[in-house]
Amino acid sequence: MTLFAEAEYRERIDRARQSMVKAGMEVLVLADPANMNYLTGYDGWSFYVPQCVVVAVDEDMPLWIGRGMDAAGARHTTFLDNNSIIGYPDRYVQSVERHPMNFVGDVIRERGWGKRTIGLEMDAYYFTARAYAELSRTLGDAKFVNADLLVNWLRLVKSDAEITLMRQAGVIAGRVMRTAIAKLAPGVRECDAVAAVYYAQMAGTEEFGGDYPSIVPMMPTGEKTSAPHLTWTDAPYEDEQMVNLELAACRHRYHCPIARTAYLGSRPPEKLVALAEHTVEGLNLTLDAIRPGMRAEEVELIWRRHIAKAGLEKESRIGYAMGLNYPPDWGEHTASLRPGDRTVLEKNMTFHMILGMWMDDYGFECSESFRVDEGGCETFADVERKLFVKK
Amino acid sequence: MTLFAEAEYRERIDRARQSMVKAGMEVLVLADPANMNYLTGYDGWSFYVPQCVVVAVDEDMPLWIGRGMDAAGARHTTFLDNNSIIGYPDRYVQSVERHPMNFVGDVIRERGWGKRTIGLEMDAYYFTARAYAELSRTLGDAKFVNADLLVNWLRLVKSDAEITLMRQAGVIAGRVMRTAIAKLAPGVRECDAVAAVYYAQMAGTEEFGGDYPSIVPMMPTGEKTSAPHLTWTDAPYEDEQMVNLELAACRHRYHCPIARTAYLGSRPPEKLVALAEHTVEGLNLTLDAIRPGMRAEEVELIWRRHIAKAGLEKESRIGYAMGLNYPPDWGEHTASLRPGDRTVLEKNMTFHMILGMWMDDYGFECSESFRVDEGGCETFADVERKLFVKK
Repeated sequence: MTLFAEAEYRERIDRARQSMVKAGMEVLVLADPANMNYLTGYDGWSFYVPQCVVVAVDEDMPLWIGRGMDAAGARHTTFLDNNSIIGYPDRYVQSVERHPMNFVGDVIRERGWGKRTIGLEMDAYYFTARAYAELSRTLGDAKFVNADLLVNWLRLVKSDAEITLMRQAGVIAGRVMRTAIAKLAPGVRECDAVAAVYYAQMAGTEEFGGDYPSIVPMMPTGEKTSAPHLTWTDAPYEDEQMVNLELAACRHRYHCPIARTAYLGSRPPEKLVALAEHTVEGLNLTLDAIRPGMRAEEVELIWRRHIAKAGLEKESRIGYAMGLNYPPDWGEHTASLRPGDRTVLEKNMTFHMILGMWMDDYGFECSESFRVDEGGCETFADVERKLFVKK
Repeated sequence: MTLFAEAEYRERIDRARQSMVKAGMEVLVLADPANMNYLTGYDGWSFYVPQCVVVAVDEDMPLWIGRGMDAAGARHTTFLDNNSIIGYPDRYVQSVERHPMNFVGDVIRERGWGKRTIGLEMDAYYFTARAYAELSRTLGDAKFVNADLLVNWLRLVKSDAEITLMRQAGVIAGRVMRTAIAKLAPGVRECDAVAAVYYAQMAGTEEFGGDYPSIVPMMPTGEKTSAPHLTWTDAPYEDEQMVNLELAACRHRYHCPIARTAYLGSRPPEKLVALAEHTVEGLNLTLDAIRPGMRAEEVELIWRRHIAKAGLEKESRIGYAMGLNYPPDWGEHTASLRPGDRTVLEKNMTFHMILGMWMDDYGFECSESFRVDEGGCETFADVERKLFVKK
């Protein structure tokens, strides 16, 4: 039933235990849905209630603890045995008197781990201030330490099975972007273009369908291009305007983001055309330069030197690690392609490199998702790198 | 630029201040994106980084504090003046050395509020354990109190302008459900049915488009109907099977959820047909009985007495307040239609009533989203209440 072989999950858990030992943790409570998925296979839209995976250094199998009604989903998607899947009663849900983390604390104490050093993902989206307070209250004798990103870092290098899914996401992402560009035209409402994007994201290909990406489609135009996280409206796209397309596809929670810029109209400004050419040239040469053994910051430097020739600068981060994730973000919050990031690139690390150049009243962006391979890098989607002009 | 008139936001803020005074709070820090939107209009997919709205009892205008690049979105969607929109530098993002809540704390101290009693939404999805720890560290002289749901409760009774949006969401929701039922057939892949649902959600009607709902479409079939939060696969729907449809539409972040059950095939089991008729009868008579002045628990009692006649029981909650929201949930986490909930129904309170009856190997669900009106209730979507049999 699980997406990957049990041996793959076991190997991930072993690596997590090694990281725990190094960090002096005896128990690890994971509330990040991507990390829960990574170690057990659990996949469900249930992160709107508290849930977690608990790993102990001396216990063979992790525990999944979640809402009682989601235990069936855990049995369906994880390799865990039934004794390791523990549902809490619904009286813990949205109550002022008790909290699911009291239940989690009780389980931890019952296992004899109540006085241990316990790692918590203090900055995980769904691990709230109250969740921490309640867990602390229930486990008054435990010692808590911060385990933020401990498992995220383990996700950085993908297995071949994970890469297969990211390639599939790449195939869908190509279709998604081509669908968006085909649909865009003056007079088409933003919501209708977004509808076509969503259709392509989910329908996928004849061989495999798509999953929901962790971020909604972003297709701003006009003055909204300066406000990158506003979502779409009912307004029609206008003639002689730029549209930024920040899209993605997802396959079994593995992402392939992709960005392009389109110009609607027959008269793209010359300065925009020139900027696009220069940016694409920089994207090409930066991707071409990637090799295993390079440091993340060295990748950024290639790009920075390229645009400096044109007298330009860009904010320093040009890419980030990504792969398995849940809303609200597909980034892994670990390695970045930016000055100061000394991460050494290894085969099967996966990044989204996004190059956006923003001038006063125009701009251009172009991105690729890729894995580092033996001799360079492999991009996942196949979309021409250029300014798309729709006459 | 704002969705509602400035006076409506001002009135909401006044009510928030009254609640703050009652609860002994001088400052309120809101991290729930729906509460930020409710008081200021702010709408963007930026909740993957820390952000908040800060209300002080003695300050005319709230503060929006978020990532620098999102300040333009705040200027675009809120009624706040530029001095009240404060962006933090990108060096605060995903850093181990500093956290956006240190910046928020500094702003609060600079305003002279550093020794005040400050309400925090301790259990809001995006207010993490670390966010609280960092804010506490920066504001060592403040007194913190829990402000969970303080603004959520203010959202319970909708304005006429909000109801207009929920009616529009209802029109889209009807189209979404009819699209899903039309698309479902043996041999159709789950992902393709979901694609059609997404298309309908976003394309909306000719007059108005749709927004992304806070929860993805749920359309489980077969054994997965017992695992309510698993999402779709590539598998084709099979012949002679039930499908549960838990869908929604959204208009400017205002939701209309709707659930139905379909049966694919020509031989729906008689017991399923009988269960569907009995459940729909119960839904009809429960909706018919709703009046302003009733208590939430009394609504549930009507339903419970109805099914008891057939010797049946159901878990006690049959509905919940909903409206404005962001992923991962459209529920408001306040009033519920369940025993013990003594909330008195008022005009323009809005609920999703969802009646699901689950037997060993079959089940049926049917729901309506509605507002309480002067003489009863008004449902938002217009979809026949029945078991949809697709031969």
